[in-house]
Amino acid sequence: MQTPLILSSFVKRAEQFFPNKLIISRTAEDTIHRIPYREFAKRTRKLADALTKLGMKHGTKVGSFGWNHHRHLEAYFGVPCTGAILHMINIRLSPEHIAYVINHAEDEILLVDDNLFPHLQQLAPMLKTVKHYVIMGDSKEIPPTNLENVHAYEALLEEASDAFEFPEDLDENTPAGMCYTSATTGNPKGVVYTHRGLVLHSYALGLSDAMGLRESDIAMPVVPMFHVNAWGIPFASVFFGTTQVLPGPGLNPQILLDLIEQEKVTVSAGVPTIWLAVLREQEQNPRDLSSVRGIICGGSASPKGLIRAFEEKLGIPFIVGYGMTETSPLVSLSVLTADMEDLSMDEKIDIRALQGLVMPGLEIRVVNENGEVPWDGKTMGELTVRGPWIASEYYKDERTAEAFKDGWLYTGDIAVMTDFGYLKLMDRTKDLIKSGGEWISSVDLENALMTHEAVFEAAVIAIPHEQWQERPLACVVLKEGQIGNDETKQALLSYMEGQFAKWWVPDDIVFLDEIPKTSVGKFLKAALRNQMDAYYQRV
Amino acid sequence: MQTPLILSSFVKRAEQFFPNKLIISRTAEDTIHRIPYREFAKRTRKLADALTKLGMKHGTKVGSFGWNHHRHLEAYFGVPCTGAILHMINIRLSPEHIAYVINHAEDEILLVDDNLFPHLQQLAPMLKTVKHYVIMGDSKEIPPTNLENVHAYEALLEEASDAFEFPEDLDENTPAGMCYTSATTGNPKGVVYTHRGLVLHSYALGLSDAMGLRESDIAMPVVPMFHVNAWGIPFASVFFGTTQVLPGPGLNPQILLDLIEQEKVTVSAGVPTIWLAVLREQEQNPRDLSSVRGIICGGSASPKGLIRAFEEKLGIPFIVGYGMTETSPLVSLSVLTADMEDLSMDEKIDIRALQGLVMPGLEIRVVNENGEVPWDGKTMGELTVRGPWIASEYYKDERTAEAFKDGWLYTGDIAVMTDFGYLKLMDRTKDLIKSGGEWISSVDLENALMTHEAVFEAAVIAIPHEQWQERPLACVVLKEGQIGNDETKQALLSYMEGQFAKWWVPDDIVFLDEIPKTSVGKFLKAALRNQMDAYYQRV
Repeated sequence: MQTPLILSSFVKRAEQFFPNKLIISRTAEDTIHRIPYREFAKRTRKLADALTKLGMKHGTKVGSFGWNHHRHLEAYFGVPCTGAILHMINIRLSPEHIAYVINHAEDEILLVDDNLFPHLQQLAPMLKTVKHYVIMGDSKEIPPTNLENVHAYEALLEEASDAFEFPEDLDENTPAGMCYTSATTGNPKGVVYTHRGLVLHSYALGLSDAMGLRESDIAMPVVPMFHVNAWGIPFASVFFGTTQVLPGPGLNPQILLDLIEQEKVTVSAGVPTIWLAVLREQEQNPRDLSSVRGIICGGSASPKGLIRAFEEKLGIPFIVGYGMTETSPLVSLSVLTADMEDLSMDEKIDIRALQGLVMPGLEIRVVNENGEVPWDGKTMGELTVRGPWIASEYYKDERTAEAFKDGWLYTGDIAVMTDFGYLKLMDRTKDLIKSGGEWISSVDLENALMTHEAVFEAAVIAIPHEQWQERPLACVVLKEGQIGNDETKQALLSYMEGQFAKWWVPDDIVFLDEIPKTSVGKFLKAALRNQMDAYYQRV
Repeated sequence: MQTPLILSSFVKRAEQFFPNKLIISRTAEDTIHRIPYREFAKRTRKLADALTKLGMKHGTKVGSFGWNHHRHLEAYFGVPCTGAILHMINIRLSPEHIAYVINHAEDEILLVDDNLFPHLQQLAPMLKTVKHYVIMGDSKEIPPTNLENVHAYEALLEEASDAFEFPEDLDENTPAGMCYTSATTGNPKGVVYTHRGLVLHSYALGLSDAMGLRESDIAMPVVPMFHVNAWGIPFASVFFGTTQVLPGPGLNPQILLDLIEQEKVTVSAGVPTIWLAVLREQEQNPRDLSSVRGIICGGSASPKGLIRAFEEKLGIPFIVGYGMTETSPLVSLSVLTADMEDLSMDEKIDIRALQGLVMPGLEIRVVNENGEVPWDGKTMGELTVRGPWIASEYYKDERTAEAFKDGWLYTGDIAVMTDFGYLKLMDRTKDLIKSGGEWISSVDLENALMTHEAVFEAAVIAIPHEQWQERPLACVVLKEGQIGNDETKQALLSYMEGQFAKWWVPDDIVFLDEIPKTSVGKFLKAALRNQMDAYYQRV
């Protein structure tokens, strides 16, 4: 009963029992590449052999700098199954932060997408520990470069042996992967995932009461593979023998909908902005989505209008979830329990919009200065989490002390618990609006605005206020054809007045062409505050 | 990520998130008792408090001697969550073996069903380590007895505190439970389950690709709670907040079908003899089974006629599985993969009759003297298993060396692997028939016989043979109204000749009124061989 929980067992299982199931990758050239798990397993062992020959050892950090495709998946296993550590680098970080995370992790080998190599090459002079660059692409030739020790992935594999054997006695607490998460101030913070954590997270994804990932699924993670393990879906898919669709670079809603229709995707996962764009495209150019059994949506709050459109118009369950880099990431999902089956569609959508029920195996507490808050759906506090796939520190970082206390992760997210034990996120600690000593949830206001028929997207931020300390300002992107005039503004304010206490209603509405977003599609409120600088000065 | 995998987290989860979901028990008086998880959790802590006051400490063995009901479920958690060990005693063992297992495990406290107490009391003089008897029943009074230190469960709970706290820092490798399994010769052999093993086994039961146990299920384990943790269903049900129906003592098909209909059971699990009897009763007195989404069947091979009747006549998926006491027990299930969906019903039933696909997290190998056998559906070998919920030894028993080698459990079961990687059990090592140097599978012959319309049950055993060493003899129980004459015998032999090589066809058929069975409904071939003594002497 002490057999270790390690990732190499996933590769072995896929190769043995699902040798013909496919990994389907869209390439940069917009063609489709298919390899079966039989081939994947061989290539994964070859990659391990090739990187070992380049000097990879137990504990070596190998960085990856790429989109979602089969080679990145091979690295997901070929690196950690040997005892080395895959550091998935967020390609959308600033150049300074990219250099920082590579240096801080002490990556010795970098696996880089061919079309991202020019970008990374510019940073090479800043990189202190990198000894080898491996270009992930179809070509066996390396591109013209001044760098030394550049290799072509396919050329390395050609020379490597698929007889490489992964150690079976690896300690399950061995680090397997790393991601860095952006900090409010300062450099990104590193999170380490162990084999044990990733294996248990994979079990959770397969539970009927969670995502229910299964062999018969055709799963398409739209979350980048450099962002919290693409929510763990690539790992779990290998475990269960699930067909994977990896959508490659340059994602847009047309491409995603084409892939869903052509490959008969059954389940997909991504952030709300992705699904808003997909919905708009689907309304204009409908595809056949009959294969889809569910959409998982997380990363930030999902507007109810979005949930309603998927559930009612498209007949697709739209399941909101919660997680973060520090949590591998799955913490909770808005699944419906048996006693919710008889609810009206409106009531169900209300529940779908919550962050939902905590996963079996994890514990959550929402705490304020008085301890754990009552489950009343009203009292706000900071969400804390613990469990076997929750990080217990930031990698070599003093900021560990701020977030990890007494075995609990302090998430920095403000939440309430409903009386039936579902998590509802109210805001990031730093995005809460403090008006007259009371808290206003910017997320609640945004979600309400986004249910209005004229609104495409909305973000609410705090503006300084002499009397009240802070007051909410709404930044709104209207749907096509809508006009951002005083009449619309008044209509939106009246709409809000019907739903909230008067002091919650934003003081003003500003119409924008777009709302700045983070690399993973979340509203970038810090940038929005900068953009609204003129408004601030006016106040 | 090192949060321990321990059973107390299940109780906490059920109490927090599913306080109103029910544990439904049928009592010895044939009434129905319902308690919600909120109450269950309190009573479980009270039980822990009460037993601690009786002297239970970390590592203390507490025996249970009872049927499936809520008090037994309370013991499933109240004992191990403190760090003590619940030894689930098979009440159907011989008196000598019952005394042996209690003495060997060194049980200090025994929890005994009120209606089983008279039986156990007679054995008391043989028990060397027992200090306290606790009678599980509704009464707070103890029955008349000469024994000292007899307590009523409900009286103990009345005095106990629900403020008892389970330790949160228990090592996950702490033993939680014990079961003994019958041996071919000698005393039963003890198997220890750790918290870690039981938690991981519970995750496996919840996977969509396994049993898919979920919150919305109403699960009825027909397997006794003294037999391999009732296949782990009670543990997993608490984890997922699943409604449980515990059918109590004196199981018969009428009672089971009434419970399914009244309580709207969605999933149940038991051995083939149970489902054969249920099927016969359902054909005579149909109940509404529309709530049932699946039947799990294991313990011995399932006749195809049984599978067909459930799948075709009743429209209920009938999923055959494989496991044993040493494996917690779930090893494999005959789930259908995506590429099997287009098969004909006949082909699907062929697959359902296999022992199926190994669970994610486990590894199996079928080995003979040449190493691992090819996956050709023909070459037989002994099934070996390893993984995080597979035992690694027999408790304080020299026979460990026979079954556990190089980290693998040698199951003593003879199997083949199909070319698509599904396990097919052929026989117990000791039940294989060796004819002229070749192996004949008694299970294959039995299953074929049981598809014949005249046959209710069939068991095939080896009889000594001068020329061929051994030859098969079929022992057949006919359906009601069928006559066991020469004509029937010839019809059955012809039926077999159409399906098997000539040398596989049994030399003779004997008609019996019943086939002796083990305490868990498996054919008791040793007893059958004794019963056929006259036949043996004739040879």
